[in-house]
Amino acid sequence: MKLLEERILKDGRVLEGNILKVDSFLNHQVDMELTKQMGQAIYEYFKDKGVNKILTLEVSGIPAAGMTALAFTEETGKSVPMVFAKKIKSKTLSDNVYCSEVYSYTKKTSYSIRVDRSFLSEGDRVLIIDDFLAKGQALSGLLDICKQAGAEPVGIGILIEKVFQEGGKKYRDAGYDIYSLAKISKLKEGEIIFED
Amino acid sequence: MKLLEERILKDGRVLEGNILKVDSFLNHQVDMELTKQMGQAIYEYFKDKGVNKILTLEVSGIPAAGMTALAFTEETGKSVPMVFAKKIKSKTLSDNVYCSEVYSYTKKTSYSIRVDRSFLSEGDRVLIIDDFLAKGQALSGLLDICKQAGAEPVGIGILIEKVFQEGGKKYRDAGYDIYSLAKISKLKEGEIIFED
Repeated sequence: MKLLEERILKDGRVLEGNILKVDSFLNHQVDMELTKQMGQAIYEYFKDKGVNKILTLEVSGIPAAGMTALAFTEETGKSVPMVFAKKIKSKTLSDNVYCSEVYSYTKKTSYSIRVDRSFLSEGDRVLIIDDFLAKGQALSGLLDICKQAGAEPVGIGILIEKVFQEGGKKYRDAGYDIYSLAKISKLKEGEIIFED
Repeated sequence: MKLLEERILKDGRVLEGNILKVDSFLNHQVDMELTKQMGQAIYEYFKDKGVNKILTLEVSGIPAAGMTALAFTEETGKSVPMVFAKKIKSKTLSDNVYCSEVYSYTKKTSYSIRVDRSFLSEGDRVLIIDDFLAKGQALSGLLDICKQAGAEPVGIGILIEKVFQEGGKKYRDAGYDIYSLAKISKLKEGEIIFED
């Protein structure tokens, strides 16, 4: 997606350890007009998959997942809700949850993610959304939760994929349909290089 | 807002300790069409305040704050970004932050919230959005961050206010313009009663 690539080149910054900082428009301060267009692009790609639920992980995936859910709801005329997996055991979250473990390489720690069983069921056709795909740890947790629920993950929409890390290849090889709006092939000495 | 009140009556549940559970449409599974209409209603109320930034707190305030930011952006033709304060010290968040403390009565613990100094400045006209207003702890932290930045909080948009708790009165008495889409005057034996 040209618009996102241009914005990454304009406002993204490369930090040590192959970290791409996009917090001025994507995950701390958020440009909602750009986010709306990203949701629309993801909808266009997956519109024929019979999606009835959008699944993401708090926190940074929420704006784009929300705009994707809204695009599906408005375009199909049927309510397609967003469900976000929670990272902390909440006081108001019942014990009746699907739970999976995620290891974060950025934070060097594991955390558990939870989805209330009421919000994901057998027969659901789930579109998973996340802001980044690198090694695929968060994605692995979300897929595990779909499996526990008997829900079918019919597609995976990613804002920024680091194709030099193994997550994308691993899950494409396993047969998943992954659509990434921006694919970065290299982050080197502050430079950001997109695939082809 | 009639639509939200009706939805609360239909799908909300009252738990022990005056906790209203709205996680089937507002803060775990999210109805984005409803969220869009809430953002539009908040925009209508504050549209003449010269708002140039929407500020919220992760996690549950994000969808409504995002839709409010989008309404301002689309209606005014100027980009009005959403900034969400972060609750955990992030690896990619610099030390150059505004920081405040928030006590959560629900979780019975304090946590710190942080906003990068790049995203809030003197002269900013800030609309604060949150999902709930009860004792006003989160609001207090967000107002403190505005103060540190020299930004002006020109309004506060709340989805659900528990008017039987003191936060709303306290901040209205202090002169803040608070607009709550649903005002609950009583939660009793599973019953939800709105203020009229």
